[in-house]
Amino acid sequence: MASTFSRLVVATLPAVPKFIVGRVAAPYVAGETLDDAVATIRELNAEGAMATLDLLGEEVRDRARARAATEEYLRILDRIRADGLDSNVSVKLSQLGQQLDEGFCLENVTEVVAAADGHDNFVRLDMEDHTTTASTLGIYRALCERFGGRRVGVVFQSYMRRTLQDVAELPAADANVRLCKGIYIEPQAVAWKGYETVRLNFLAALEKLLTRGVYVGVATHDEYLICAAVAMLDRLGVPRERYEFQMLLGVEPRLRKILIAAGHRLRVYVPYGREWYQYSVRRLRENPEVALHVMRAMFRR
Amino acid sequence: MASTFSRLVVATLPAVPKFIVGRVAAPYVAGETLDDAVATIRELNAEGAMATLDLLGEEVRDRARARAATEEYLRILDRIRADGLDSNVSVKLSQLGQQLDEGFCLENVTEVVAAADGHDNFVRLDMEDHTTTASTLGIYRALCERFGGRRVGVVFQSYMRRTLQDVAELPAADANVRLCKGIYIEPQAVAWKGYETVRLNFLAALEKLLTRGVYVGVATHDEYLICAAVAMLDRLGVPRERYEFQMLLGVEPRLRKILIAAGHRLRVYVPYGREWYQYSVRRLRENPEVALHVMRAMFRR
Repeated sequence: MASTFSRLVVATLPAVPKFIVGRVAAPYVAGETLDDAVATIRELNAEGAMATLDLLGEEVRDRARARAATEEYLRILDRIRADGLDSNVSVKLSQLGQQLDEGFCLENVTEVVAAADGHDNFVRLDMEDHTTTASTLGIYRALCERFGGRRVGVVFQSYMRRTLQDVAELPAADANVRLCKGIYIEPQAVAWKGYETVRLNFLAALEKLLTRGVYVGVATHDEYLICAAVAMLDRLGVPRERYEFQMLLGVEPRLRKILIAAGHRLRVYVPYGREWYQYSVRRLRENPEVALHVMRAMFRR
Repeated sequence: MASTFSRLVVATLPAVPKFIVGRVAAPYVAGETLDDAVATIRELNAEGAMATLDLLGEEVRDRARARAATEEYLRILDRIRADGLDSNVSVKLSQLGQQLDEGFCLENVTEVVAAADGHDNFVRLDMEDHTTTASTLGIYRALCERFGGRRVGVVFQSYMRRTLQDVAELPAADANVRLCKGIYIEPQAVAWKGYETVRLNFLAALEKLLTRGVYVGVATHDEYLICAAVAMLDRLGVPRERYEFQMLLGVEPRLRKILIAAGHRLRVYVPYGREWYQYSVRRLRENPEVALHVMRAMFRR
């Protein structure tokens, strides 16, 4: 649990100088360039982890930037193949123009998924806040109709009240779902509150996904949920190639190595790019030791 | 969680002037008259909630008052039909003479259930403290023999150690059970202690009831249990008309609306009458903000 002081620092994060946030957030981001990200992925692959590459940036408000992001994703997919990296990609639809024009966004993401299809790779559609959920699932459905469930995947957040229903309505028999708790600050009307409740719903959704034969990315750093997931996978006899664990770059690297050593497949989310600020603030909010890190960074000029 | 100060205020509630308790308890009680209750039920029905009407009063020590309560329940059932309200009734057997003479109490409650039978309605026997459990279940059994399980229902409290056994011994195939945690202060000999334990037993009892095809009123304001119940109902494929959620008037009205919007059936417990004191003290004991409310009421003469 975060201390009162931590909570204060978190609440005032937007007032913390950006270079300090950048310094504190450094472990969460691979760097500003694709070369930085590739170097990080090589290290992860060498330690037995898979990766998913994310170009930072979200809530894009003009078409040129959405097109630039789309084209960068095409370069990323080429680079992954050229360098023989064990990595897929994660995209935020808001970066591809979702708030501007859903049809335009669908065209952009279709290009990316088509490229992944040609490269025998995979595109994860990240899930953002609840105002985008229905739209993101609609775009996912359209992509499944065209590419099936093997080239594109979606994310369900266990804090959302709708999640079990969304599992029931998955559009593809061979769907691939990342399950996480969710990190945005959501209203009670749409989200379960309380960490025990969110954990409970995580396990209910995981069991429903697994019993339907869905490939699941179990995306959490919560030891309780990891233990419960390991026990559930064991109880249901889910084979190793039908699931993976997922963790974020810079969060709990020790836990990551423990899971790999135990024989599970594990994928690390590797963000890179110049637009690291919003992503980093969300990461720092999750971290109960953020206050300490911010203080240290401020006196380490 | 209640603060130390709240716990102190709760412990000394009997010493708080009655008019203050009344002021603080106002949201939990529909009013002193049947007309007040009817007005409240109309509002609830309009927002899509069902109701169960409760005439306040318990531990009646003379026959005349038990008869008066019985006759008031007959008037209530007539009024529900006449006004076309979506409501059944909840009765406390201690109000119908249970402590005076069980046979007399059975006669009274039989009159009420017979009236409900004639009106195509339903009577819930509220469960009180553990000294009444065996007697209440005996009377329930007698009523089931005469009316079957569709006209009369009982309540199981998940804090009671006997609850799973009571589920096994339900006397009617078409039984209708309200499941709640329980609100009385009970000795360890008969009751599970600790909120996690009571939650666990709630879910164990709920699963046992549902897998036996019992109609269940899931009576809780605990988001964790609501989430777990929603997941269990989903996992077991229980159809919408085979369960309902239940909440108390004045407690978590937002949560009530969220559940209705999500497509669940929900019933609100609507108490009315002049004998609101004991009921209100139990409600206030449950409320962690009671101290604040009491303080405010004291300075708002």
